[in-house]
Amino acid sequence: MSRPVLDVGALHGMLAEQAAIGATPEGGLHRVSASAEDGRVRDWLTDWFRAHELRPLVDPVGNQFGLLELAGPDAPLLLTGSHLDSQPQAGRFDGAYGVVASCQAVAAIQAAVAAGAPRPRCNLGVVNWTNEEGARFQPSLLGSSVYAGTLSAAAAGELTDRDGVRLDEALDAIGYRRGDAAPPASAYVELHVECGPELEAAGRRIGVVESWWGAVKATVEMVGRQAHTGPTAMRDRRDALYAAALLIVAVRRLADEANADAAEVLYATVARAEVSPNSPNVVPGRVLLWVELRSPHADVLERAHARLASEVEQAAAAAGVRGRVAAESVRPAGRFDRELAELVDAVARRRGHEPLRLATVAAHDAISLAALAPSVVVNVPSAGGICHHPDEYTAPEDLEEGAQVLLDVLWDLCGTGGESHSRKDGGGGSAAAGI
Amino acid sequence: MSRPVLDVGALHGMLAEQAAIGATPEGGLHRVSASAEDGRVRDWLTDWFRAHELRPLVDPVGNQFGLLELAGPDAPLLLTGSHLDSQPQAGRFDGAYGVVASCQAVAAIQAAVAAGAPRPRCNLGVVNWTNEEGARFQPSLLGSSVYAGTLSAAAAGELTDRDGVRLDEALDAIGYRRGDAAPPASAYVELHVECGPELEAAGRRIGVVESWWGAVKATVEMVGRQAHTGPTAMRDRRDALYAAALLIVAVRRLADEANADAAEVLYATVARAEVSPNSPNVVPGRVLLWVELRSPHADVLERAHARLASEVEQAAAAAGVRGRVAAESVRPAGRFDRELAELVDAVARRRGHEPLRLATVAAHDAISLAALAPSVVVNVPSAGGICHHPDEYTAPEDLEEGAQVLLDVLWDLCGTGGESHSRKDGGGGSAAAGI
Repeated sequence: MSRPVLDVGALHGMLAEQAAIGATPEGGLHRVSASAEDGRVRDWLTDWFRAHELRPLVDPVGNQFGLLELAGPDAPLLLTGSHLDSQPQAGRFDGAYGVVASCQAVAAIQAAVAAGAPRPRCNLGVVNWTNEEGARFQPSLLGSSVYAGTLSAAAAGELTDRDGVRLDEALDAIGYRRGDAAPPASAYVELHVECGPELEAAGRRIGVVESWWGAVKATVEMVGRQAHTGPTAMRDRRDALYAAALLIVAVRRLADEANADAAEVLYATVARAEVSPNSPNVVPGRVLLWVELRSPHADVLERAHARLASEVEQAAAAAGVRGRVAAESVRPAGRFDRELAELVDAVARRRGHEPLRLATVAAHDAISLAALAPSVVVNVPSAGGICHHPDEYTAPEDLEEGAQVLLDVLWDLCGTGGESHSRKDGGGGSAAAGI
Repeated sequence: MSRPVLDVGALHGMLAEQAAIGATPEGGLHRVSASAEDGRVRDWLTDWFRAHELRPLVDPVGNQFGLLELAGPDAPLLLTGSHLDSQPQAGRFDGAYGVVASCQAVAAIQAAVAAGAPRPRCNLGVVNWTNEEGARFQPSLLGSSVYAGTLSAAAAGELTDRDGVRLDEALDAIGYRRGDAAPPASAYVELHVECGPELEAAGRRIGVVESWWGAVKATVEMVGRQAHTGPTAMRDRRDALYAAALLIVAVRRLADEANADAAEVLYATVARAEVSPNSPNVVPGRVLLWVELRSPHADVLERAHARLASEVEQAAAAAGVRGRVAAESVRPAGRFDRELAELVDAVARRRGHEPLRLATVAAHDAISLAALAPSVVVNVPSAGGICHHPDEYTAPEDLEEGAQVLLDVLWDLCGTGGESHSRKDGGGGSAAAGI
């Protein structure tokens, strides 16, 4: 039996290669979406696709695919991947690990087939989604949202970063806005470092992400009156930054109140503030704040969301400025495909693991994909739960094991393995039936 | 008698010319220190100096002088001027009016002398101080502080803007860092729009600024831990922006408490915040805040200053981050020269005004100069008290009258006019005796 074998050395080699593109002195990674560094790592991935005979495609929002046709043009496409963009001054694993492991999993299957393994019943695709992080352009999950049809490529292209640069311009500058049609996936599997502490705390190595928290992301605008901090009496101030500070404190209070007598069920954060004119002796005339609310419970999220508008009003009134929610998006909580989650669970157990079922607070592109096709996320531990920070770290053996599980899941899904899943189905069928 | 006559048309012409350099669509001015726009307006001033036979000098921190030698190389130098730099997105009058009016006052004296008026007993100089505003580089009053010897030109040159550009690099880029020795002034008179509401409220047209408020300017650093806003539990957050918000609210409370049962005697502001990494889904790891405290009373300022350190500690502790005052400067309250103030008062009365005595909350370069030589500031009204805003406005007739008062003060000080002041001196002497 020629089951595919993961090339562990190649996995670590690719991880190191990508981490060198946008590396920071602290050992981290700074590779925000559609930057020059993002362009270089995309070129590197394209080269890898070509060297391994995956057909490279780039769609109008810059999503980058590498396709391996194993089962003919009409066979279902099993897509796997993640994202190569990073937060500013962040770590080397978040996103990149999933892309690299997907490459190696597909390469292992390709090699096994070449060596005479049973031919898979599906085609395989590796994907690198554009602007997953939402650091340079908001919203996050941008490329996968366009893929899922909840955002048009045209609207996405018009989004601007803080310097007013449009996404389409930025993609053009690195050569990654093209006209290829995005290939439709029949199923999607994403491997990702946990970016949280639960696997480590529980002493587990494989997480099966079966659901995601809901999130409200709101941009709040406070408009006061720009004035000289010297001669402008306090009673005449219309200080937009003071209003913003009151709101930041109020947003934290939302979480503290919701979590007072229970496990934490509401995360509430203001993480970005743009102050204008941001000069030490000019009363700020305008501040934009990016507010995030996250909860696994629809009712908790709705209550906090409803409170947000009144907190904006109160903070604005206390500072004598005008406040409003200028834009917002709501992502309801949801569940990944149960069968796929079961399959990951079974594959992990077959490899000797006791997998942990997880609800992800962070968003992943798999959430966008879940609206189109059965999707799931597999997690490996993050040391200390640290993410979006140069200290982000996952042990080599956990990286290897996660990639091995991904490989086995893909192999089973394509109807070429799947012992345990076949049993569940009552024999004869395979997970590929679902895709 | 050939008393100098102000060329009102030329005054308004120069005001309009300078306002076109860095003009904004809103009718305001954006001309921060050592920017390309600042370079252009400096070139324009140099051209004016040359066209009017004033000798142009530029010292190592970019202070720009135009000297008119009327009384021989050993005679005292009467300096007058202000600054051509502006706040971001600010108005057309703050600073520029004083420079332009000084040019026209000196030109009027020059013309009168050429037409046979009594020769002045002093030389005249017009000055444009570098980075008065403190918008791009902190501290404010930068050029005049170097002139006064409280800051070295070398240390000033090493200051950086928010993009890490050094002042000396920025000055080199516009060609305004040179080796000329700054000419020592025997007296300094600065004309400036009030940037406050008091003249307008009192229905007066000329203000004699006889004192200034004290000020503490502090940079506060909050250092937390950068983390993903998704998977990082609220209890594990070390959110530097939350700490910053708590401090901004506490700083406002300092003012509210001090002013609760009295006229306003404490202004307390946070007007600039730099958030890192400032991405919507990354808990901010570091925030810098610029805090300003201003009071006319030394004890009030000292109490607030002492409270600031403990407020920083409390805000940091409440957010689980480290907080510290990273840098601070203290400018004690003080008085301008009494005789010079009396002279301005007398000149204004001679022209039919009832001048208002003022204490300036905003800093002016004259505060730096006051440590070296008799100095004073003359104010004209600002409509609505508005300053550091595109709506900044002073009526043309007030602009003319202010320039006329400046001209008469210079003329008296040089011992060529001075009826009222001569009377005060007991006759025979002149204000020039003081310079």
